[in-house]
Amino acid sequence: MLVNVPQDSDFSIHNLPYGIFSDSVNTSKRVGVAIGDQVVDMSLLAKSGLFSEIQGFGGQAVECFGKDCLNEFMGCDRRVWVAVRKELTDFLQNENNRVRKALKNGGSEVLVPQSNVTMHLPAKIGDYTDFYASKEHATNVGVMFRGKENALNPNWTMLPVGYHGRASSVVVSGTPIKRPCGQRVVSKGGPPVYGQCMKQDFELEAAFFYGGKENKLGEAISMENARDHIFGMVLMNDWSARDIQAYEYVPLGPFLGKNFGTTVSPWVVTLDALEPFLTQLPEQDPKPMQYLADGAFGGRGETYDINLMVGLKSKSASSYTTVSRSNLKYMYWSIKQQLVHHTINGCNMRPGDLCGTGTISGPNDNSLGSMLELSWNGTRNVDIGNGETRIFLEDYDSVRLSGYCQGDGYRVGFGECVGQIIPATPMF
Amino acid sequence: MLVNVPQDSDFSIHNLPYGIFSDSVNTSKRVGVAIGDQVVDMSLLAKSGLFSEIQGFGGQAVECFGKDCLNEFMGCDRRVWVAVRKELTDFLQNENNRVRKALKNGGSEVLVPQSNVTMHLPAKIGDYTDFYASKEHATNVGVMFRGKENALNPNWTMLPVGYHGRASSVVVSGTPIKRPCGQRVVSKGGPPVYGQCMKQDFELEAAFFYGGKENKLGEAISMENARDHIFGMVLMNDWSARDIQAYEYVPLGPFLGKNFGTTVSPWVVTLDALEPFLTQLPEQDPKPMQYLADGAFGGRGETYDINLMVGLKSKSASSYTTVSRSNLKYMYWSIKQQLVHHTINGCNMRPGDLCGTGTISGPNDNSLGSMLELSWNGTRNVDIGNGETRIFLEDYDSVRLSGYCQGDGYRVGFGECVGQIIPATPMF
Repeated sequence: MLVNVPQDSDFSIHNLPYGIFSDSVNTSKRVGVAIGDQVVDMSLLAKSGLFSEIQGFGGQAVECFGKDCLNEFMGCDRRVWVAVRKELTDFLQNENNRVRKALKNGGSEVLVPQSNVTMHLPAKIGDYTDFYASKEHATNVGVMFRGKENALNPNWTMLPVGYHGRASSVVVSGTPIKRPCGQRVVSKGGPPVYGQCMKQDFELEAAFFYGGKENKLGEAISMENARDHIFGMVLMNDWSARDIQAYEYVPLGPFLGKNFGTTVSPWVVTLDALEPFLTQLPEQDPKPMQYLADGAFGGRGETYDINLMVGLKSKSASSYTTVSRSNLKYMYWSIKQQLVHHTINGCNMRPGDLCGTGTISGPNDNSLGSMLELSWNGTRNVDIGNGETRIFLEDYDSVRLSGYCQGDGYRVGFGECVGQIIPATPMF
Repeated sequence: MLVNVPQDSDFSIHNLPYGIFSDSVNTSKRVGVAIGDQVVDMSLLAKSGLFSEIQGFGGQAVECFGKDCLNEFMGCDRRVWVAVRKELTDFLQNENNRVRKALKNGGSEVLVPQSNVTMHLPAKIGDYTDFYASKEHATNVGVMFRGKENALNPNWTMLPVGYHGRASSVVVSGTPIKRPCGQRVVSKGGPPVYGQCMKQDFELEAAFFYGGKENKLGEAISMENARDHIFGMVLMNDWSARDIQAYEYVPLGPFLGKNFGTTVSPWVVTLDALEPFLTQLPEQDPKPMQYLADGAFGGRGETYDINLMVGLKSKSASSYTTVSRSNLKYMYWSIKQQLVHHTINGCNMRPGDLCGTGTISGPNDNSLGSMLELSWNGTRNVDIGNGETRIFLEDYDSVRLSGYCQGDGYRVGFGECVGQIIPATPMF
């Protein structure tokens, strides 16, 4: 192995996630792959000819991995993704790899320490869609706002409910998030006032990037082909201003309560890396319509077993306290079902388009994916360590999402998705 | 005048709208301006040096007008837009213009007949937002679905309700629109079925393109600065599948009922051209909050007097029949108020971002902006000429939106926004 990887590192040889990085020596943004505590400079590797023999890609590799976004690589055929992964694995594992032998220091010149790099948004996101695919989350929110009897709308178990989000305000992990201002209601039923958000929240989500060719406007993607059109996944914090959202969202959905910022983790974990962690979906009752039916696991359909954690840290705290542990496998609708439903009307998807899963809450009080649920809309305190509690986020609170699949002696992890709330700047 | 313009042409010398065109001689997409029945090739004019003396733009003009989208020009300062308009007006009106004199045939070599060009989408749309700003439309829809007492939600008169749309499926006038498939309910309260849309609709809208510098994430745009950040307007048909929309939209808003296609007119009419047609907004009661207050017209706020028409044509008809006449001035919330509200939480806007007004319905039965309203959800027939009636759109029906401001002996018009419904292709 070119790089020694500890057992608890997110970035084992089985992972090889893609990201966009720059460093102080070379300030150009370019494609990298995380391994242990290093980044493989894919633009250098491409120049060294590692990918030159990949059919339909060799001639394009240098340009593709020199780009400031992953869109071009995401737009390649899945066979190219698989072939690149194979070449890269061989390069890292095999001292006799032809390119590694030709490089100085046994190939280590293509490595940059992660501690020296700046990570950037992995893709130019054309469109960003957010789903609402966790039954636990949708039920919790429904119970809070509409009562137990009407918690889930009739459409919820028939289709993955989704809505369009704002692409311009999707930012990479580490970007500060300013507390938004807007119209909110102070006393129930009363008029709204202008002011800063008083119910600042996070949402624990995963998200996938569309890959492969754009489907043409008017052409649906089938369940059979869905896998080939998902490049990989990231963690996502769908920051939410609950009071602004509550006032504005009827009847056309969330708008300013969401679009002030959405944070994604910088490393895109490919579906090929997640494949060993496939597991069955929760039972879907009623059975999904034919176009949403997934034959995997005896007709139950497939998802991924990804451990997810939320850490909170106040301004004065020195470390994060875990406030929630959830898992992607709790989610009712799979990412394949989300993609297929999205295109059933012919909506066209482009490489780099981002789809969030919605808040991923689990079955118990320690697996809830938002402050709204953890504090039950402000009615119970959440212990965030350091002798402090919260019902919603305060200024300078930091939120860290993390997640990994546990293999036998190794991990396939996502790294961190971090953001800190900074104070609002009201207009008057 | 270099081009003779009839009094009823949409493209008088007072208009000068921008678009992206190509022709059979030069198939490169580039920037053009419509005048009469001609297109001024702005890339040629830039090469001829017409804009070389414009401060902060001269060095950029050739590249900017050679682009396949207007984003770069939209991203310039408003002073640049004004200066280019001035130079172009002088070129077209003045035989002694230095560039015109230097060109062959008195300058006519920069003209291409509109009949010879193909028009393209005017901008690469980063994000597309749709508002819901016509009180008549919101009330009509509310009465139909929630009854007279609850027609308007309490938030409607406090803020311009808006939601995110899909940017990838915004297409230019002339693109066929495939009838979408999806889940719809056949009998009230019953389960949904998969199938093609049975309530295919159009929506008469206008839309504006954001211009000037991107506001940084976290920075709001004030009413005072809003004007400088609106480049210009187009007509927009927000095609809607009412049955799909009705089933899916609770609680997160319209999704597949809208994102199968949105058509915009190819010519972007600048706000500078619309300036002479400023008029006061309808009275806003209650008075808007301070951040939405517009001092124009004695505090009433300003909008534009733009006549809008909808024409329908069946497969067998030879011409369009006008089914609705409306006006932008009926709209309750102005486009400036829409932009300001959109950024009040710090949401960042980028040049080329598109914001639709929502369906523009007027006060009477002949000024309704959708089939949903014209047929009152299918309960009354709409005469579309040619001995035919409709309640919703049938396959091969064409919809044409048009609009113009009437000056004294001239028009500032938008041209056409046309689309034809083609049959669905169900998956099974």
